[in-house]
Amino acid sequence: MKGIWNFSAGPAVLPRSVLREAAAEMENYRGWGMSVMEMSHRSEAFGEIIGQAEQDLRALMHIPQNYHVLFLQGGATGQFAAVPMNFMKNRRADYIITGFWSERAYTQAQRYGDVRVVATSADRDHSYIPDCTDLPISRQADYVYICENDTAHGTQFFHLPETKGKPLVADLSSCLLSAPVETEKYAMLFAGTQKNAGIAGLTIAVVREDMMENGGLPETPGTMQYQNIAKNRSMFQTPPTYPIYICGKVLQWIRRQGGLEEMKRQNRKKAALLYDYLDESRLFHPLVEPPYRSMVNVTFTTGVPQTNTQLASLAEKEGFIGLKGHRAVGGLRASLYNAMPYEGVERLVDLLHRFEKSSV
Amino acid sequence: MKGIWNFSAGPAVLPRSVLREAAAEMENYRGWGMSVMEMSHRSEAFGEIIGQAEQDLRALMHIPQNYHVLFLQGGATGQFAAVPMNFMKNRRADYIITGFWSERAYTQAQRYGDVRVVATSADRDHSYIPDCTDLPISRQADYVYICENDTAHGTQFFHLPETKGKPLVADLSSCLLSAPVETEKYAMLFAGTQKNAGIAGLTIAVVREDMMENGGLPETPGTMQYQNIAKNRSMFQTPPTYPIYICGKVLQWIRRQGGLEEMKRQNRKKAALLYDYLDESRLFHPLVEPPYRSMVNVTFTTGVPQTNTQLASLAEKEGFIGLKGHRAVGGLRASLYNAMPYEGVERLVDLLHRFEKSSV
Repeated sequence: MKGIWNFSAGPAVLPRSVLREAAAEMENYRGWGMSVMEMSHRSEAFGEIIGQAEQDLRALMHIPQNYHVLFLQGGATGQFAAVPMNFMKNRRADYIITGFWSERAYTQAQRYGDVRVVATSADRDHSYIPDCTDLPISRQADYVYICENDTAHGTQFFHLPETKGKPLVADLSSCLLSAPVETEKYAMLFAGTQKNAGIAGLTIAVVREDMMENGGLPETPGTMQYQNIAKNRSMFQTPPTYPIYICGKVLQWIRRQGGLEEMKRQNRKKAALLYDYLDESRLFHPLVEPPYRSMVNVTFTTGVPQTNTQLASLAEKEGFIGLKGHRAVGGLRASLYNAMPYEGVERLVDLLHRFEKSSV
Repeated sequence: MKGIWNFSAGPAVLPRSVLREAAAEMENYRGWGMSVMEMSHRSEAFGEIIGQAEQDLRALMHIPQNYHVLFLQGGATGQFAAVPMNFMKNRRADYIITGFWSERAYTQAQRYGDVRVVATSADRDHSYIPDCTDLPISRQADYVYICENDTAHGTQFFHLPETKGKPLVADLSSCLLSAPVETEKYAMLFAGTQKNAGIAGLTIAVVREDMMENGGLPETPGTMQYQNIAKNRSMFQTPPTYPIYICGKVLQWIRRQGGLEEMKRQNRKKAALLYDYLDESRLFHPLVEPPYRSMVNVTFTTGVPQTNTQLASLAEKEGFIGLKGHRAVGGLRASLYNAMPYEGVERLVDLLHRFEKSSV
């Protein structure tokens, strides 16, 4: 087996032990005589799996009791419509645009009400996070929306915006579980699990109870009504059982590693190694201004599309996967999620260094 | 390992070879050095997986070229809203109610327009399929809707309704791939894959091109817009990659078995064995009138709730899983999907027979 370093933005690298356990349990889960894939979502065995996953998530993220944990289908992109459909009482919301994903969320939200951009980083190609200490928040805003870590552009909020009392809704798809989080500062947060929390096909939402009270716009599909899903404990319909099982294994792995403080320590160290190299390099440079650089998605470029492509091709030959930048941004990108070991980043820096020397 | 016979309605039993292959490929898929779970949905390897799955589905179901195959999230229940949102031009649709699932679809559709019931089997507890040869189809109906096989009640349409030229939309969740299908008779069909086609978290839709032309109601979430998803070849958002991979393996397994004609032959034989026993039994009787009995979900009862529960408990002790009826129907139910071997049904009949003898 060729050694692989998988820097894909998601679906992404998983802990080896998670895959090993999943393979071992595939045909007969812990003496139940069948695969988790074959279990009724209402069975005792699966009830334990989803219950444990919720408990581990609550413990890791210190989720208060007045927040519901929802296991959803539809992806983070599904929430771009579900969020306005559930939360728009006044048909008014404020969006902060910091890249590809908040732009996409904003576009979808416009179908449901009067949606305003209260800050944007579009003027400098989304290479920074705008100052959000004194935003022109709308008096009637039902919520203020951010994408906390833009996977495509590689920016990250390290300070949450001052929302002047309005509920904060945040897409945490890429940074969920990468560092400790003050859950009580959000009215809702959500994430597709295919980056730091498992595989594609499952979305986790953490929603404060009072946000769901009005039940949403009348045209909200039943499978997107948070109140409905909370009431049915994520069983309004058959949930994505196997992705929940894998998510549960990843949560257990994070707890064994030492929790989110430890994840943050490791992720910081990995990111620092790569950014330090890029800052010193004469060939490569990071796309994002220093204070706003994502700890999990490192975007960079040589400035020459052809050279970027050469690097990505060479890298692939040597077993470094997924270094091509997002199609909307171009350049290069290395995603350093929890399951990427420090050694992988060392090897990547070595590769970049060799490429740089050979091209000077 | 205790021998298990899994009669669950879904998630349900899978072919042993599918599980064995998935376990073997878990840590390193065919030399790619990673798990399918870790692959970018835009990678070459996953492109082959989803392409092959579509090709196998098209071959098995003889899907004409003017139909799109969509790999969706959101479950069949998600389509209960997506169908009216996509297809209602006149905000008018006709529903045929034959049980729990069409009732649920009808309830959701009412949010989007004037929805009429043109036939129902509610008068006899959904124990039959109403005559659909001359229905009062609305002149302005955007489509006529059926659930072709009601998983809860155990009925099945063996003749499609005469829709008088209106497009037919059908939920095939439980009967997909259980027998040959004349795809060109439907304007759209869809199914959750957790019964006969894989695991929970993936929904397959087959949609005739002209149905998508108007793009749907303006409030349709992007992740539910069929036109949008078709245009992006099921990659508008990250698709549920691992459930697609498992679905692909199930499709290959069906092809190796001899295709849908062979599935039908086996399913008929299994269903006949069980129904014949039930018809002769003095303790048990089927819930559905003979011409309308589902080949895949066999519902029956002793008539006494306590006795049903006794049977289900005894069965579970002997390794027969999932015989409790749907919560909305009660009684007992045995689901005989493609992956349930004939031997499993023989054993079940033996169990029922022993139970019957001991209770007389």
